[in-house]
Amino acid sequence: MKTAFLGLGIMGYPMAGHLSKQFETLVWNRTTTKAESHNIEYSTKTISNFNDLSSVDVLFTCFPTSKEVIELAPKILEVAKAGLVWVDCTSGDPASARALNRMLEERGMFYLDAPVSGGVAGAINGKLTVMVGGDESSLERVKNVIESFAAKIVHCGPSGAGMAVKAANQALLGVNILALSEVLLGLEKAGVRTSTALDVINASSGRSNVSMNLFPERVVGRGFPATFALGLMAKDVRIASQALREARVPSPITSLTENLLEIALRELGPDVDHVAASQLLERWAGTELGIEG
Amino acid sequence: MKTAFLGLGIMGYPMAGHLSKQFETLVWNRTTTKAESHNIEYSTKTISNFNDLSSVDVLFTCFPTSKEVIELAPKILEVAKAGLVWVDCTSGDPASARALNRMLEERGMFYLDAPVSGGVAGAINGKLTVMVGGDESSLERVKNVIESFAAKIVHCGPSGAGMAVKAANQALLGVNILALSEVLLGLEKAGVRTSTALDVINASSGRSNVSMNLFPERVVGRGFPATFALGLMAKDVRIASQALREARVPSPITSLTENLLEIALRELGPDVDHVAASQLLERWAGTELGIEG
Amino acid sequence: MKTAFLGLGIMGYPMAGHLSKQFETLVWNRTTTKAESHNIEYSTKTISNFNDLSSVDVLFTCFPTSKEVIELAPKILEVAKAGLVWVDCTSGDPASARALNRMLEERGMFYLDAPVSGGVAGAINGKLTVMVGGDESSLERVKNVIESFAAKIVHCGPSGAGMAVKAANQALLGVNILALSEVLLGLEKAGVRTSTALDVINASSGRSNVSMNLFPERVVGRGFPATFALGLMAKDVRIASQALREARVPSPITSLTENLLEIALRELGPDVDHVAASQLLERWAGTELGIEG
Amino acid sequence: MKTAFLGLGIMGYPMAGHLSKQFETLVWNRTTTKAESHNIEYSTKTISNFNDLSSVDVLFTCFPTSKEVIELAPKILEVAKAGLVWVDCTSGDPASARALNRMLEERGMFYLDAPVSGGVAGAINGKLTVMVGGDESSLERVKNVIESFAAKIVHCGPSGAGMAVKAANQALLGVNILALSEVLLGLEKAGVRTSTALDVINASSGRSNVSMNLFPERVVGRGFPATFALGLMAKDVRIASQALREARVPSPITSLTENLLEIALRELGPDVDHVAASQLLERWAGTELGIEG
Repeated sequence: MKTAFLGLGIMGYPMAGHLSKQFETLVWNRTTTKAESHNIEYSTKTISNFNDLSSVDVLFTCFPTSKEVIELAPKILEVAKAGLVWVDCTSGDPASARALNRMLEERGMFYLDAPVSGGVAGAINGKLTVMVGGDESSLERVKNVIESFAAKIVHCGPSGAGMAVKAANQALLGVNILALSEVLLGLEKAGVRTSTALDVINASSGRSNVSMNLFPERVVGRGFPATFALGLMAKDVRIASQALREARVPSPITSLTENLLEIALRELGPDVDHVAASQLLERWAGTELGIEG
Repeated sequence: MKTAFLGLGIMGYPMAGHLSKQFETLVWNRTTTKAESHNIEYSTKTISNFNDLSSVDVLFTCFPTSKEVIELAPKILEVAKAGLVWVDCTSGDPASARALNRMLEERGMFYLDAPVSGGVAGAINGKLTVMVGGDESSLERVKNVIESFAAKIVHCGPSGAGMAVKAANQALLGVNILALSEVLLGLEKAGVRTSTALDVINASSGRSNVSMNLFPERVVGRGFPATFALGLMAKDVRIASQALREARVPSPITSLTENLLEIALRELGPDVDHVAASQLLERWAGTELGIEG
Repeated sequence: MKTAFLGLGIMGYPMAGHLSKQFETLVWNRTTTKAESHNIEYSTKTISNFNDLSSVDVLFTCFPTSKEVIELAPKILEVAKAGLVWVDCTSGDPASARALNRMLEERGMFYLDAPVSGGVAGAINGKLTVMVGGDESSLERVKNVIESFAAKIVHCGPSGAGMAVKAANQALLGVNILALSEVLLGLEKAGVRTSTALDVINASSGRSNVSMNLFPERVVGRGFPATFALGLMAKDVRIASQALREARVPSPITSLTENLLEIALRELGPDVDHVAASQLLERWAGTELGIEG
Repeated sequence: MKTAFLGLGIMGYPMAGHLSKQFETLVWNRTTTKAESHNIEYSTKTISNFNDLSSVDVLFTCFPTSKEVIELAPKILEVAKAGLVWVDCTSGDPASARALNRMLEERGMFYLDAPVSGGVAGAINGKLTVMVGGDESSLERVKNVIESFAAKIVHCGPSGAGMAVKAANQALLGVNILALSEVLLGLEKAGVRTSTALDVINASSGRSNVSMNLFPERVVGRGFPATFALGLMAKDVRIASQALREARVPSPITSLTENLLEIALRELGPDVDHVAASQLLERWAGTELGIEG
């Protein structure tokens, strides 16, 4: 069994590392220095040209958006062997996933959309959750390979379903960051400290991962470590909103969240931590959260 | 130490029960049959007229809204003794709380807004979270009394702060119900089962109390037990939104949530379970969540 | 017939001028220099103290908000004679109007809420539209007095109805400014000049006073003459939104407009022209409207 | 000069009629009976097969959406002659217009997107406004042909710009219908008749084509003649919103309007008159507009 992993970003780098411990693994990255580091750290081999992929059985990709995947696809499909299973861990859009799936099917290959959650920590620990869309029997063939970096693998539905579930999760992440910012700012003005408010909310029905884990660390602590960029979250929410629109599901909250994150992107730039979207609301309220007297 | 508990609703009834096990407790309810049951179950005594309250040291109230509290206030203040501490567990509005606080202060009495969270189960088990606004020294004097039904008591800030924190929590509860409904309906249309989607989301960053506890039980199971009425949640979110408006905190997500719950109230009636707000989105999407093939 | 006019702002000054040409008119303004100018320009007399109002038959007020009116009310009611008709041209809120109406009724006086539209030009030309709430027979008694500065007087309904109609109009003004900014910015990015887009829209079904009159002059011309301040429009929309909320009319568009204007206020300040709210959307879109190549 | 007109709907039928009075005109319609009526009424000739289009110099299309145009395109391009100018009066989407433009360019033909406004009356009177996107010199060549049914022809910008301007206009139409419904319902509850409110608004700054022409006739009169279907307006607003999204212009008002019209479509069906979208808000407010006591 021969594998390859294209896209050694903040997530892909450690994922490819786990993969390489169990399977022969070729790697590739647009910026070659990262690939060279990976070769040294994990004894992987960088492909010299795409022909090297011709013997690969399972191909992983992990890029910022579907756009990069689609741009590489012709080069890959030209050389890949029949029977290839392509596991695309990009947080891409369902429509692109379905298009790629059709392209591979026509060539006797198999495409799975397989975005992950669990963040940088999950990637480093090899404990990611993988949400898979596509043919279930294809997934069965590569499940043990994916398990090299995953704690939980869920077959979500037909092609595109993995991308759709990932985007849906991100929309909930986004709406929780914005809604929590709004109400905490109101409480701040009513004389309630952010840490006190979070303490109560986290023992009550409105609690979420955002209130329990992200805000105590980042908003109260005023550290925004940029483990996941605002630009990527905004992109994910755009995907979720677009999928809802195409499915003709009225979704006023998701649409509004999409718009607010677009504004946050303009005001704060794409590279800040996603939780820093709270700073947009702070700006509008004219006060800051988490500052204790 | 003599106590009284006014308002023996679904929450107040067991709260007054716990109270009565440690302190002499008078009770009162608009519908007298409930008070009579309480007398039998907990050996409490119903007040025959409001003069009976003249010897009470700590008074609890727990009504649907601040309106009921304010209507009773003149009768109570006429007879209550100086030094009374009034603990108002109603999920009321901060402005009313502050008005009551001023009224009591003028008479040498003490008012604490002290709404609770934890639901019916928490009330029955005596494990509620109590969020308190008002003078901290007043809280110190009655903390051990409140502990008869509470697992966690948090002093949130000045008068009204308890009400504000409760309403903020409910706004987050409401927005999570609506946003989760939107994205799950989109996923349903993309071929993803609700239970599968929740399984993934609950291992990911978008998870919340709503996705982990309420939707698996109520939306997937299609049981809406009405433990907490939609009408009350809508009222709470209205309070949160109004407080944000008065504090001049732009809050587009909370405002939209307020409006959508107002529509839900019109379409579904006030008495259904709050999680049934998801049915508004189902109606608009033309499909139902949680129906497994 | 003796009249008085309190509040000589940008609107009140010329209105009181027209009034004084037909009726004996006392004037008052917080800043006395304006009252002195008015005395000279129109041969009016400034009241030296509020006792001077005791002989007045018809009293006009025109202040920024109901707050200023309510603050003056006790001083006025103390001295005013029975049978006084008070015509309040302030763009106030319906709840305050109803409260004032009740206060006057108790004293055998008559209150009419009577905000105006037509802008500074309408005030100078004496061609304002006056929207009146309150008792119709009171209006009949003073119609000819109001006509000194009005081209159109409409009895809108019971007390508060005039304020409500005015606020409703302003909400439509606000939503048109924001919505037009959004779509014109999209067209700008698609290569359509603002002036061309307005030319077409103004011959089509989406046209409005904003697209036909305000944007050609102010957004295309990039002149924002501050004839009506953003802060006042935002206040009016807040009144409209609050009235809808109290009437339990779901109003998502008005609520969102209220929130966006609140943000505009934070970003642009209260003193800029109301049409400059378009600059908020320009900022978010990263481009400017009306700049012709 | 030989012309053809494909799509004899409520708009296309009279437009093709005007065209045929000045130019030789072939017609086509999916439902052949309409084409036959047209032949009789205007002495036009129905094409028997698409080869008949090979001698046509200027081709008009007018369909419900770009989808129908794109489906017919291959049949047309196969037979059309070099130098053809295709004037697409469909209210389509800019992206499709640009795609068609590229397809024709490759074949030495010319595509203009040229949606119209002015409604059924404008089409019957030959007084439509035509908003054109595409190469200006192509427009010059066919301007006199378009003038057969137009009172105003505006070159809006590059390919797609005509579609974009039309959609933008419709978004403003939609937002005005919804916003006006909201505020009028609030006024109704405050005791203000709809006709009175419109009378005042139409003399004030919040007036629009919707308040001046559509609501007095349709909402006050309770006649909803379905001159323009809700389904088509919702489709147009979807196009506007999608264009804004692709241009990365934050557009919360347009997005919310899109969502509300999507809900209206679900609740009222696509075939009712577009102004009947007001009935969605009436339903939510629990009252009806325009009913005079």
